[in-house]
Amino acid sequence: MANIYDLAYDLEKGLRDSQEFQTLKEAYEKVMGDPSAKQMFDNFRETQLNLQQKQMQGEDISEEEVEKARQVVELVQQNEDINKLMEEEQRLNTVISDISQIITKPLEELYGTGNNDVQ
Amino acid sequence: MANIYDLAYDLEKGLRDSQEFQTLKEAYEKVMGDPSAKQMFDNFRETQLNLQQKQMQGEDISEEEVEKARQVVELVQQNEDINKLMEEEQRLNTVISDISQIITKPLEELYGTGNNDVQ
Ligand SMILES: [Ca+2]
Ligand SMILES: [Ca+2]
Repeated sequence: MANIYDLAYDLEKGLRDSQEFQTLKEAYEKVMGDPSAKQMFDNFRETQLNLQQKQMQGEDISEEEVEKARQVVELVQQNEDINKLMEEEQRLNTVISDISQIITKPLEELYGTGNNDVQ
Repeated sequence: MANIYDLAYDLEKGLRDSQEFQTLKEAYEKVMGDPSAKQMFDNFRETQLNLQQKQMQGEDISEEEVEKARQVVELVQQNEDINKLMEEEQRLNTVISDISQIITKPLEELYGTGNNDVQ
């Protein structure tokens, strides 16, 4: 029986060597190497995080905040390098989410049997 | 370069075959096979989930609810099979959390460089 942690490290290495990760890394480094793109991207991320936190904590989000967020999104969408970065992040998020679904399948199967009222 | 999905399936199989998962499975099936233990466990899980959801949504939790939750915990702690199950769940959660940290390390390293104000 292979050690679970060895298998996890193999997967980590596979992810690190993957085209998906390498392309994301290049896109990220390109944005981080351009001070004005970096600032725009950081601003976008901060706005997103703030809104998410408010939403999770059930706080109200004002129309002004929604409008500000819309403007920040519009701004980053005009930057080709940031668009590329966000595309690559989306691609890697999909891979990570697929992996997560694959490895939690044994648990899902176990808890899906005879325990239908708890997810 | 190994395919990421093949590596994820290897890890899934390793997890499924592991002592940790097999022991959890036995403990879970033992509780599910005992109607009164099952009911007690389901009640405990439901109470936990309700409190977690309220907490996440920033809702108030009454003293009565806290007291009810305390009683439910006390009750399940008196059941040896449920205790065993919760221990095994904790053990597997630790493994899953370790795995998750291992495989997201490339991303953590990438985003930890030159982007210190966003986690
Ligand atoms: Ca149930
Ligand atoms: Ca930053």
